[in-house]
Amino acid sequence: MNLPKSMQNVADAFSSLPGIGPKSANRLAFYLLRIPKDDVLRFSEALKDLKEKTQICQKCFNVGESEICNICESDSRDKSTICVVETPLDLIAVENSGFKGTYHVLHGVINPMAGIGPDEIFIAQLLRRVKNNFDGEEGLKEIILATSTSLEGESTAMYISKEVKNLFDDKVKITRIGKGLPIGADIEYTDERTLNDAMSGRVTYS
Amino acid sequence: MNLPKSMQNVADAFSSLPGIGPKSANRLAFYLLRIPKDDVLRFSEALKDLKEKTQICQKCFNVGESEICNICESDSRDKSTICVVETPLDLIAVENSGFKGTYHVLHGVINPMAGIGPDEIFIAQLLRRVKNNFDGEEGLKEIILATSTSLEGESTAMYISKEVKNLFDDKVKITRIGKGLPIGADIEYTDERTLNDAMSGRVTYS
Repeated sequence: MNLPKSMQNVADAFSSLPGIGPKSANRLAFYLLRIPKDDVLRFSEALKDLKEKTQICQKCFNVGESEICNICESDSRDKSTICVVETPLDLIAVENSGFKGTYHVLHGVINPMAGIGPDEIFIAQLLRRVKNNFDGEEGLKEIILATSTSLEGESTAMYISKEVKNLFDDKVKITRIGKGLPIGADIEYTDERTLNDAMSGRVTYS
Repeated sequence: MNLPKSMQNVADAFSSLPGIGPKSANRLAFYLLRIPKDDVLRFSEALKDLKEKTQICQKCFNVGESEICNICESDSRDKSTICVVETPLDLIAVENSGFKGTYHVLHGVINPMAGIGPDEIFIAQLLRRVKNNFDGEEGLKEIILATSTSLEGESTAMYISKEVKNLFDDKVKITRIGKGLPIGADIEYTDERTLNDAMSGRVTYS
């Protein structure tokens, strides 16, 4: 037996989303049936607006609601630093940590197993942006590679650092985010590779 | 830092749903940003239609798309049996088990701690339906109480059985769904109360 058509449509839409199975989808559809109609309509409207109103920033490729995003446009940001991240959600995480420079969103990582090469993500656009900067002398000093510390994230960081070095030599400093123990970690339970990173990444007490 | 307004609206809508936290909500909003626009619009439409098209069956209070639901309307269903369930999702579960009678959906259970008394769920409507049946001689023979075996489900079943007995004496048989070990269970790991139910609910091999 199936749900009524109009409920099945909602349940199908939910279960097409990642992490939501058919049972949860049914339950969500029933939940929506019980809440005020206006709330459901607001949800519907929000979805309709999502694609209409958002666009990708032409400079840093972050998601925003204008051609150039707020961060790229702001005068109070430090334009001498570009932080390279995988996704807009990573950007938000870095932003919340207090970073005040600018960003470049790759929209993915190099992952040969999944058929994603350097051309599938916004690496060429980053290199062009660095080139344009030096042509116009905007004062770029440092590129921080803040891709994740997974195998793919590491090789993407490696690839970008090589490309930048090839093209611009020592005109710009390339750094990788620090690796080591996260806050609250226990030495005993930390894996060897993290501990190795933490040991070699040690800093002198000032 | 926040998401662009139109994404935040979608994320907020998702995080208002049960079981979806703010982080998952953000991720779902970004997921929708990457899938084809038509899929998102179809989702939006499905939500808009949900409240417009569904209605509660005036007889059994199941959710359907007409005043009287398909099950109540069907000639091939056994009208001599009413299976009482808590929610439309429970109805679907019983339906999938192969039951061919009719239903009555309570839309909840008696739960004094949550302020839900007998009048807050569709018990009076069930009693009226039974009464109408006997007035018109439709041949009702059995009411199966298929509320859950939680404390609230049990007391709701108890309450209904008493009310029906009070009003209709022995004119209708009242049964409670069987309790015991679920398929695949291990005697050793079964809790005492379930095992007690299973022992007292034993059936003779035919």
